Amino acid sequence: MTTKHAVIPDSHADLLTRPLFVHLATRGPNGIPHVNPVWQIWDGEFLRFTTTHDRRKCKNVTADPKVSVSVNDPEQPYRYLEVRGTVERVEPDPSGDFFDVLAKRYGLSYEAPVGDAERRVILVVRPEHTTHQ
Amino acid sequence: MTTKHAVIPDSHADLLTRPLFVHLATRGPNGIPHVNPVWQIWDGEFLRFTTTHDRRKCKNVTADPKVSVSVNDPEQPYRYLEVRGTVERVEPDPSGDFFDVLAKRYGLSYEAPVGDAERRVILVVRPEHTTHQ
Repeated sequence: MTTKHAVIPDSHADLLTRPLFVHLATRGPNGIPHVNPVWQIWDGEFLRFTTTHDRRKCKNVTADPKVSVSVNDPEQPYRYLEVRGTVERVEPDPSGDFFDVLAKRYGLSYEAPVGDAERRVILVVRPEHTTHQ
Repeated sequence: MTTKHAVIPDSHADLLTRPLFVHLATRGPNGIPHVNPVWQIWDGEFLRFTTTHDRRKCKNVTADPKVSVSVNDPEQPYRYLEVRGTVERVEPDPSGDFFDVLAKRYGLSYEAPVGDAERRVILVVRPEHTTHQ
C-alpha cells in the first residue's frame, strides 16, 4: 500500500485527519475562482466533502472537476497544506448519513436527518498534487 | 464615500481587519485552482497581498486576474467571508516596505529588508462580490 499515502506528505497528514475546516477552491462560472471553508474527511486515499446537488459548489465541480484545498494549522499558521485533485465521483447521500459522519466529526449538534438530506451529495476527490510548508 | 465599503458587509469586516490568515484562490495553469494561506491587509477599498514576481501566484494572476479569498473566524468557524475580485494592479515593492507592514501586522520577527525584497510585488485586489454566513 505504498502508493496509497504517496500524495499526502506524512509530515502534514494531521492537517487532514484533525477536524479542521479546510478551504475548498473550485472554478465558478466564467472561470472565476470560488473558495470557502468546509468540512472534510480523508480516508487515506480520497478526500470527501458534503454539499447538495443544487448548490453552486456541486455545479462548479460538475462543470470542472479540478479542485484545490487549503488548510493551515491553527497553532502554527505558517504550517499549511494545499491539496490539488479531481472530483472523481459525486455520490448521492439521500439518507444524510455522510452528513451525519461529518457533523459528528466537527461537533455540530442537530436533529438528524439533516433537513436537506434528499439533496445531499458527497464530493469524492482524488488528491494528485500537494504544496506544503 | 458610501460606495467605498459597499462590497464588504459591515457584519463581517472584522475578518479582514483582524490579522487573520486568508486563503487566496487563483487560477493556475490548465485552469486548475490553486489556493493557500496568505497575509492580507484591507484599506476599506482594496485588499493587498505580498508575493514575488517569480512565484506561481503572481504568474497566475498576471495570466488571469480573477481571484477569490476565504477567511473564517477562528472562534466561530462557521462564520466566514468569501471575497471575489480582480487584481487591478501588481505594484513593485523593491524596498520590501509593504512586506514589512504585513510582517508587523502578523507578528513575524525578521531582519528587514526581507531577503527577496528586490523581487517583491504587491497584488492590489478590488473586491467585487462576497458570500458570507
